[in-house]
Amino acid sequence: MQPQQVRVGILGGSGYGGAELLRRLLQHPLVTLSGVASRQYLGRPLAAAWPHLAGVTEATFADEAEVIGGCEVLFTATPHGSTALLVRQALDAGKRVIDLSADFRLSAEDYARWYGQPHPCPELLSTAVYGLTELHRDEIRMARLVANPGCNATAANLALAPLAAHGLLGEQVLVSIAAAASGAGRSPELGLHYSEVNENVRPYKVAGTHRHIPEVEDTLGRAATMGRRLKTHAPAWRPTITFTPHLIPMTRGILASCAIYPTQDGVTESELLALYGAYYRAEPLILVQDELPQTKAVFGSDRCLITVRRDLRSGWIHSFAVIDNLGKGAAGQAVHNLNVMLGFSETLALLGALWP
Amino acid sequence: MQPQQVRVGILGGSGYGGAELLRRLLQHPLVTLSGVASRQYLGRPLAAAWPHLAGVTEATFADEAEVIGGCEVLFTATPHGSTALLVRQALDAGKRVIDLSADFRLSAEDYARWYGQPHPCPELLSTAVYGLTELHRDEIRMARLVANPGCNATAANLALAPLAAHGLLGEQVLVSIAAAASGAGRSPELGLHYSEVNENVRPYKVAGTHRHIPEVEDTLGRAATMGRRLKTHAPAWRPTITFTPHLIPMTRGILASCAIYPTQDGVTESELLALYGAYYRAEPLILVQDELPQTKAVFGSDRCLITVRRDLRSGWIHSFAVIDNLGKGAAGQAVHNLNVMLGFSETLALLGALWP
Amino acid sequence: MQPQQVRVGILGGSGYGGAELLRRLLQHPLVTLSGVASRQYLGRPLAAAWPHLAGVTEATFADEAEVIGGCEVLFTATPHGSTALLVRQALDAGKRVIDLSADFRLSAEDYARWYGQPHPCPELLSTAVYGLTELHRDEIRMARLVANPGCNATAANLALAPLAAHGLLGEQVLVSIAAAASGAGRSPELGLHYSEVNENVRPYKVAGTHRHIPEVEDTLGRAATMGRRLKTHAPAWRPTITFTPHLIPMTRGILASCAIYPTQDGVTESELLALYGAYYRAEPLILVQDELPQTKAVFGSDRCLITVRRDLRSGWIHSFAVIDNLGKGAAGQAVHNLNVMLGFSETLALLGALWP
Amino acid sequence: MQPQQVRVGILGGSGYGGAELLRRLLQHPLVTLSGVASRQYLGRPLAAAWPHLAGVTEATFADEAEVIGGCEVLFTATPHGSTALLVRQALDAGKRVIDLSADFRLSAEDYARWYGQPHPCPELLSTAVYGLTELHRDEIRMARLVANPGCNATAANLALAPLAAHGLLGEQVLVSIAAAASGAGRSPELGLHYSEVNENVRPYKVAGTHRHIPEVEDTLGRAATMGRRLKTHAPAWRPTITFTPHLIPMTRGILASCAIYPTQDGVTESELLALYGAYYRAEPLILVQDELPQTKAVFGSDRCLITVRRDLRSGWIHSFAVIDNLGKGAAGQAVHNLNVMLGFSETLALLGALWP
Repeated sequence: MQPQQVRVGILGGSGYGGAELLRRLLQHPLVTLSGVASRQYLGRPLAAAWPHLAGVTEATFADEAEVIGGCEVLFTATPHGSTALLVRQALDAGKRVIDLSADFRLSAEDYARWYGQPHPCPELLSTAVYGLTELHRDEIRMARLVANPGCNATAANLALAPLAAHGLLGEQVLVSIAAAASGAGRSPELGLHYSEVNENVRPYKVAGTHRHIPEVEDTLGRAATMGRRLKTHAPAWRPTITFTPHLIPMTRGILASCAIYPTQDGVTESELLALYGAYYRAEPLILVQDELPQTKAVFGSDRCLITVRRDLRSGWIHSFAVIDNLGKGAAGQAVHNLNVMLGFSETLALLGALWP
Repeated sequence: MQPQQVRVGILGGSGYGGAELLRRLLQHPLVTLSGVASRQYLGRPLAAAWPHLAGVTEATFADEAEVIGGCEVLFTATPHGSTALLVRQALDAGKRVIDLSADFRLSAEDYARWYGQPHPCPELLSTAVYGLTELHRDEIRMARLVANPGCNATAANLALAPLAAHGLLGEQVLVSIAAAASGAGRSPELGLHYSEVNENVRPYKVAGTHRHIPEVEDTLGRAATMGRRLKTHAPAWRPTITFTPHLIPMTRGILASCAIYPTQDGVTESELLALYGAYYRAEPLILVQDELPQTKAVFGSDRCLITVRRDLRSGWIHSFAVIDNLGKGAAGQAVHNLNVMLGFSETLALLGALWP
Repeated sequence: MQPQQVRVGILGGSGYGGAELLRRLLQHPLVTLSGVASRQYLGRPLAAAWPHLAGVTEATFADEAEVIGGCEVLFTATPHGSTALLVRQALDAGKRVIDLSADFRLSAEDYARWYGQPHPCPELLSTAVYGLTELHRDEIRMARLVANPGCNATAANLALAPLAAHGLLGEQVLVSIAAAASGAGRSPELGLHYSEVNENVRPYKVAGTHRHIPEVEDTLGRAATMGRRLKTHAPAWRPTITFTPHLIPMTRGILASCAIYPTQDGVTESELLALYGAYYRAEPLILVQDELPQTKAVFGSDRCLITVRRDLRSGWIHSFAVIDNLGKGAAGQAVHNLNVMLGFSETLALLGALWP
Repeated sequence: MQPQQVRVGILGGSGYGGAELLRRLLQHPLVTLSGVASRQYLGRPLAAAWPHLAGVTEATFADEAEVIGGCEVLFTATPHGSTALLVRQALDAGKRVIDLSADFRLSAEDYARWYGQPHPCPELLSTAVYGLTELHRDEIRMARLVANPGCNATAANLALAPLAAHGLLGEQVLVSIAAAASGAGRSPELGLHYSEVNENVRPYKVAGTHRHIPEVEDTLGRAATMGRRLKTHAPAWRPTITFTPHLIPMTRGILASCAIYPTQDGVTESELLALYGAYYRAEPLILVQDELPQTKAVFGSDRCLITVRRDLRSGWIHSFAVIDNLGKGAAGQAVHNLNVMLGFSETLALLGALWP
């Protein structure tokens, strides 16, 4: 540990998001991991939860108060609902927080509606910045509290933001998601049992019930009406997202396959590709490409690959984005946000993919 | 072999569709398998192509002419383009044919447009009946030539036909397909190599390029305008299908996940479920259920599970259908058609699923 | 239900073994399924546990006493330890029992040693016949209680019995098992979570700790010293099995890969193949083949494929057997035993494989 | 590119070994990738072969002569047989070579016997050092030509070397391998087709036919008789390895599951663990652990996890090693060797695992 390094802590270090935070933060050149908490594994070595860390670190899981106390920046990868109070505790102690839970992504009204309970700390909502790095970089830089986006929402928003920004998004947008099993977490349950998931694809939380919907509607509304600069939770206009997620037999990866009937009829595929390319031109982690993307090309990585197509028969636009749900969809975006918050080179400790 | 049994033959017996025909026909109580052809395995035992048939049958692969000559009903599971001539040969010899290739599913104009070559035997197209059993049973019964539907088209058509029949389908229909790898056949290629498919999902043939589109538009147009009785290739009206297939890391199974903006705004989810239930009431292989369907529930089987949802926020209807691409999507439907053609009990030799 | 049919019941109908019993018994021509019990799903439709049975049966899960009372033959697919008492209850009521648990496979001494508790009903052990059909057919025919073998033990025993019977087995035998996840059951736990099992292979219960070891040693000892006729639990001689199981990312299937240093040095590979072929000549479910077997060739089936090789460099014999752990390794063997017990044609309701 | 960096080139950059070399060398701080060749993709961008490198590098595949000419150290990941001549060309041009093919791993006699052809360049064999880094570090440091070990051989040798070094290895050693599909390369063939590999396990090249056998016998013979220092191909003593590989449905990973009947009867499990720990004490990439290892813990990494067990019932020792076949089993070990050859810190550019 060099003196100038920033001390960071993790709450929820025994979930998959925690593992991916560890993978990045343990090798971050300007950061020291000062503590990792897990209620389930308290006092045990990290390797008790993570066999791949045996021999890599001797650290043990600490309790939450200790981790909060010992860090300058805190990552919370704990369940929604109970996370807000931990965040408040950290903010009160003067820490900056990057929250991977859903607790600070929505307005109090939307939180109550979509999560079925009153928001635990509504007074903090105005402090939170929605952490879709590419769209809210300037506010993230100064933020004390970043609400790291949901994995499915990240894929959908990155696939659609350029259309929103150019006024091409109509009132109605359809998003079909193919999601890997790790997005559902590490807690054992029948629906995630190997023998039930393997050789199976099934839709879930369809027809307006998935909790990432309001994140997408907010973000695209802001992209359409306010550009990249403003973080307000309630844009003047929001599209209605018809969101259809499907669980597929895969460990990592999300494909967002979007269909948009454009407001301007004449736009061509090459114009769309140019428009996407320009929108993400300066982004180190986004690649707009001609080819249809595939999730294996981002497996283990913090990148997002995107393309766009126009169906000449039907007039619909398709946009496709692939991410690793645990990388760009969670821990990678969180560390990207850390780098932005601390003024570091943005891609420090971020990762590329492996193939096959 | 009992004297009254019908002799059936298979061309293309070393592909996956052929294997599934064998599984059903070898145990069909009223049928004798009189010959199986494969150019690649000519003269070798069936078990050379199919390790699971070792010890089950001593039969060897014969040549095509011999198989055609020895049967009363012929299944062709050979590549499109070259199949039409084999079909003509069989029809000329007085055989009835169930063709699993794409050669007799479309009008000559559509065939030329979608398959990039003039139809090899346009004079036979008026003889062919499109073999979606549930919609064209009466014509299939009398048919000399049945064009067995495409696997993706079957899933989409079954998911959408009730809406079409009730005039609820608008001009525009979106179909998202999650398709298993066996649907792409058994010929080795990089895109189907294990290490490239596993842990990967990718869209393919999107934006109006998939060849099953005209089958779906024809079928739904007929369902909307002519009911179940007529086989004409050119209905007066056809919806435009926006078709988006995705290859997922799975051996068997198709999920059709459809989105329809209804022509009548007031229709409710329970009305839709009732309407679907009534449409398929008498069908032995279709189950309309409340639960979201999953492909594992039809793995290895000839059934199709369907449900329908209405998104109250956006107004869109979702319908979901799952089939086994090699069962109801290919061999199962072909044997179902055989049973109809021969006046047998319809579900003879058809199969249920296994779990897990 | 025809009057002459035999009424059978199942306890433990919501586990994977139960599902596979249902798949066979629902289509068995001489059997009526009179009741299926599950504590977890009591009173609910079978389809609540088994999505693939929706629309196939309207039956609901009954309680155990009711199922025992209503049947003539009972299958118990419940956890070891608690099953013995249910078996006693059924025997006391005059029923015949096929027990898929481990409760009646071992002597009281071995049970206590390997399962860590005194045997619950030691007085019944002399009633039980170990149900490896191919080796104990004559006793099974007359048995009131059949102890259906363990899945891994079945694969190992079938791979090794011919060597035992010919005195070729030395004191030491090595068995390496590649086992699919469904063999570990349907109860959710971290080690069977999709994201932990996929892309992972791991040894488990190695170095003399797996509970199927004494079953294999008993069976091979009997095969070596008493032939196929006698069921005594304690043969005069038993080999020592070094048993090394590995969990692989697969839903179904077991490969037993055995290594034997033969007692007679001169035996050749072709002699071994002949010897295996002769040993299983009359067996409808066992195929001795030249090719190395693969589990996909028995997926979903009740067959066992076997081959044998001699390594000329080292002198070791290898024998390989593949089964479906839920078919021949559990439900298929249980139904085979039922057919034997009732004097039916042996393969009634037994199943072949599907490919791919 | 900084002036003091070493220029390295790759032949065979479109195979899986090539991809993993790229992943490490593109981020190696002391190395510049001066050229990558692929006959199949000549002149096209790396991203044409590797979708995950789109946007990461603009480099194109060059021809072999150009790559050889432009580098100081050459990696050859080309097919055996044809590689030897390329190696000679590079050595003649004064380059150092790390050869990932099998061409320089064996003596001329063994090469002819196991690869079925005379060695193309026997005069170079005395130049080659077998590149199992942990055993031959000193010779590798000075080597002009390193023969990078086979993937299965690496797992087996690391699992067994400590026993060899302590004289505990008898004449006979059994090695069972569970191998992922990527080890068989990227060329499409039926046996590696997704639908044939998924849900399937099968033995292959058993009974003394696998070409990694002589590598293992040589290496263990040297470890037993000459320690870590000497590279001679023909040790005075070699054990006989009974080698049984199995292909499992997985993309990456090898488990070597070894069984050894020890020469000394009294050795205990804790003594064995201590002995293994001491043997690998200074090794940065080897972890001897108490727990049974699993391949997921090394997925994507260059590490090897090992444990050892003693079966008290049978007396056999089991040792287990897991590696990523493309990491420690190929590219990772090659880059490790590069670091040793160039006097760099040994783990530069080497990688840890990701979970799940």
